[in-house]
Amino acid sequence: MSETPAVTVDIARLSTGDADFEARLETLLAWEGVSDADVQARVDEILFAVRSRGDAALIEFTNRFDRLSVSTMGELTLDAERLERAFTDLPEEQREALAHAAERIRLYHERQKPSSWSYVEADGTVLGQQVMPLDRAGIYVPGGKAAYPSSVLMNAIPAHVAGVREIVMVVPTPDGVVNELVLAAAHLAGVDHVFTVGGAQAVAALAYGTESVPRVDKIVGPGNIFVATAKRAVFGQVGIDMIAGPSEILVVSDGGTDPDWLAMDLFSQAEHDEDAQALLVSWDARHLAEVEAAIARLLPTLDRETIVRESLSRRGALIHCRDRDEAVALANRIAPEHLELSVADPEALLPQIRHAGAIFMGRYTAEALGDYCAGPNHVLPTSGTARFSSPLGVYDFQKRSSIIHCSERGAATLGRVASVLARGESLTAHARSAEYRGTPEA
Amino acid sequence: MSETPAVTVDIARLSTGDADFEARLETLLAWEGVSDADVQARVDEILFAVRSRGDAALIEFTNRFDRLSVSTMGELTLDAERLERAFTDLPEEQREALAHAAERIRLYHERQKPSSWSYVEADGTVLGQQVMPLDRAGIYVPGGKAAYPSSVLMNAIPAHVAGVREIVMVVPTPDGVVNELVLAAAHLAGVDHVFTVGGAQAVAALAYGTESVPRVDKIVGPGNIFVATAKRAVFGQVGIDMIAGPSEILVVSDGGTDPDWLAMDLFSQAEHDEDAQALLVSWDARHLAEVEAAIARLLPTLDRETIVRESLSRRGALIHCRDRDEAVALANRIAPEHLELSVADPEALLPQIRHAGAIFMGRYTAEALGDYCAGPNHVLPTSGTARFSSPLGVYDFQKRSSIIHCSERGAATLGRVASVLARGESLTAHARSAEYRGTPEA
Repeated sequence: MSETPAVTVDIARLSTGDADFEARLETLLAWEGVSDADVQARVDEILFAVRSRGDAALIEFTNRFDRLSVSTMGELTLDAERLERAFTDLPEEQREALAHAAERIRLYHERQKPSSWSYVEADGTVLGQQVMPLDRAGIYVPGGKAAYPSSVLMNAIPAHVAGVREIVMVVPTPDGVVNELVLAAAHLAGVDHVFTVGGAQAVAALAYGTESVPRVDKIVGPGNIFVATAKRAVFGQVGIDMIAGPSEILVVSDGGTDPDWLAMDLFSQAEHDEDAQALLVSWDARHLAEVEAAIARLLPTLDRETIVRESLSRRGALIHCRDRDEAVALANRIAPEHLELSVADPEALLPQIRHAGAIFMGRYTAEALGDYCAGPNHVLPTSGTARFSSPLGVYDFQKRSSIIHCSERGAATLGRVASVLARGESLTAHARSAEYRGTPEA
Repeated sequence: MSETPAVTVDIARLSTGDADFEARLETLLAWEGVSDADVQARVDEILFAVRSRGDAALIEFTNRFDRLSVSTMGELTLDAERLERAFTDLPEEQREALAHAAERIRLYHERQKPSSWSYVEADGTVLGQQVMPLDRAGIYVPGGKAAYPSSVLMNAIPAHVAGVREIVMVVPTPDGVVNELVLAAAHLAGVDHVFTVGGAQAVAALAYGTESVPRVDKIVGPGNIFVATAKRAVFGQVGIDMIAGPSEILVVSDGGTDPDWLAMDLFSQAEHDEDAQALLVSWDARHLAEVEAAIARLLPTLDRETIVRESLSRRGALIHCRDRDEAVALANRIAPEHLELSVADPEALLPQIRHAGAIFMGRYTAEALGDYCAGPNHVLPTSGTARFSSPLGVYDFQKRSSIIHCSERGAATLGRVASVLARGESLTAHARSAEYRGTPEA
């Protein structure tokens, strides 16, 4: 039997120099949140039922899935007063922390508001774009163990800053358990009312409307596979934010950050759930070994040790690379949801980072600060979708209309060009419509 | 037998005062581009084949569906030189009209570029957002009768203005028929190369990549039901623009615009296809009758008379309303793709318009001018999705990363807040990660 103390930890160790590096990385990153045919069929059935039978179906599914026995939607509705009470009844420390976070999130998102604009051309033609908020937004908040008040702030505050007229929140209360912190956050974030429903049935109610639940224009917020499948199905009928995968972090370290800090940063990602992904890359091999030792030492001290062990062994990795450039290339290859640049001069790396949901710069910027209260949104593109998606923002709750106001002279010029192009496409009614304006008084 | 001249036209006549108005309007607007199980299954099969077998599958499907007999991807590839030749070989009038349109579209879209921004807080913490273009965009262009060079300009120019590194276009060439105007537009719009493939197989190639077709980050552009179904399926793997429904216009007239002009504006929408929707609303009953007479008189002079008759009878309507306010309410209710405000003072109505893809202001701004060359994009949200979607724009080819750079002092403050909130969510590794920074030197 070995006498070595058990400081080993079950986490992949990769090196960019390995022949099989790309294949192993690919396997590690692979994630497909595809719903199987069974889930799809059950979701379709729920969507159809709520669409055709409204409140009655919503109540039935809620009683069945959340183990309740209500008979009216009134019992599944919380008004603004109830939300405010949840807030004022909080312990002072929590109330202040929540209010502080809400205020910072609001300040950051106010900078994000796009404005309407227009310009006048020499002939008097006006072109522009008008920005308007959505009329009504729906916020999905998971119930049970994954009910996060911080997510309520992150989803609802951008909608409120955008000027959305009505913000409707849905949150299931399995076995009738209500999360007061979630309701308090809803109050702070400007939510107008809450329905305590969840799952595909809540998505259906928001997308189609029922007698009690108003139809919304966009549904945002995370959920389980039923919620994700339902959101994908109603996309087009309403807007949706994104289909979120498991949460992930890539930490780039130059070797100068305390290994304990980095270990805890990786843990903070891994503790979300067993599919969460925590990756560390460094060109300093000794440093990687130190972080590994810190992981082994600190793991037993964690409240969620079992989850963390599982996610680190399934999807975590310590990656040794050649140099900074290779670390940057890796970040762009992975396009992580969270990217921590735990280096002395993060500003130098920043312009080279093309794909990341959020970038946490320097040794002091733990991802956890951004998760709660730095200001930027914590709803971020996962599974490499930072290649083409952005953090949730005010822009998700607004839309634009093009403005075209042709002067008589402008229409004459444009009419001639449009006519030639329309005839090239054999769309002669287009051409004639343009020509009417193109030759005034003709 | 009646002696009355046949000036009747088959188009719905509605009045907002009718008891059944809302129900009839609902029926008229109803549109569900839902793919049936058969289409879904065929698309899934194609996606799987191209994903697993790459070029070989792409060539097979292309030979089968487009009735070709090629054996290499080289035969399905057009390089930049070929595109340029298409442009230089055009008749001068078309070349100039296309170049004029491209230039105006480029100028308009350059105003749309969002910028990166950041701000520094009192304690030295920096917050901001970095805007970056996508690496690679895929433009889907339909082949056959719906191959529109103007759509190539409208889809590719915003990508080019956004700074996308590589723009890949796919366009099927059924029976080997190549549209030179489409290739010329691709040259002007900055497309890097073209693959002459289409359908779900082209979407699969762009989403997953093959030996020859590079994987893109986002796929934009319209297509038939197979293309739309494939885009919905690969959404998440890549970004997509939207699932477009049939094209539509709502014209609001105060009675002062030439009825012939308005009839032709309605025709220009209706001539797209049998599902296109052309609606006119006015509070002037006599004017509506005049437009109806103009429709009856001009219909027989149209090149696409059959299509126009069909779409007007299936989905068109002349709507009488009480007053301007009711017309505005109707516009917001319908959230049309194209909204023509054919009134004396369109500026007075504009602030009340909450939902429309593009707004054409005044009597001289025919929709056709915007379709080709005014500058704003003609890819617009259809079927009421203007409630939550925007015109295609530069912003569709860029994405944002949040930037957080905490100073040591900033981290200490934020660390305390984050710690309270994380413990409220039972995420204690988050709390401890924040606390490490929250109490420096502890």
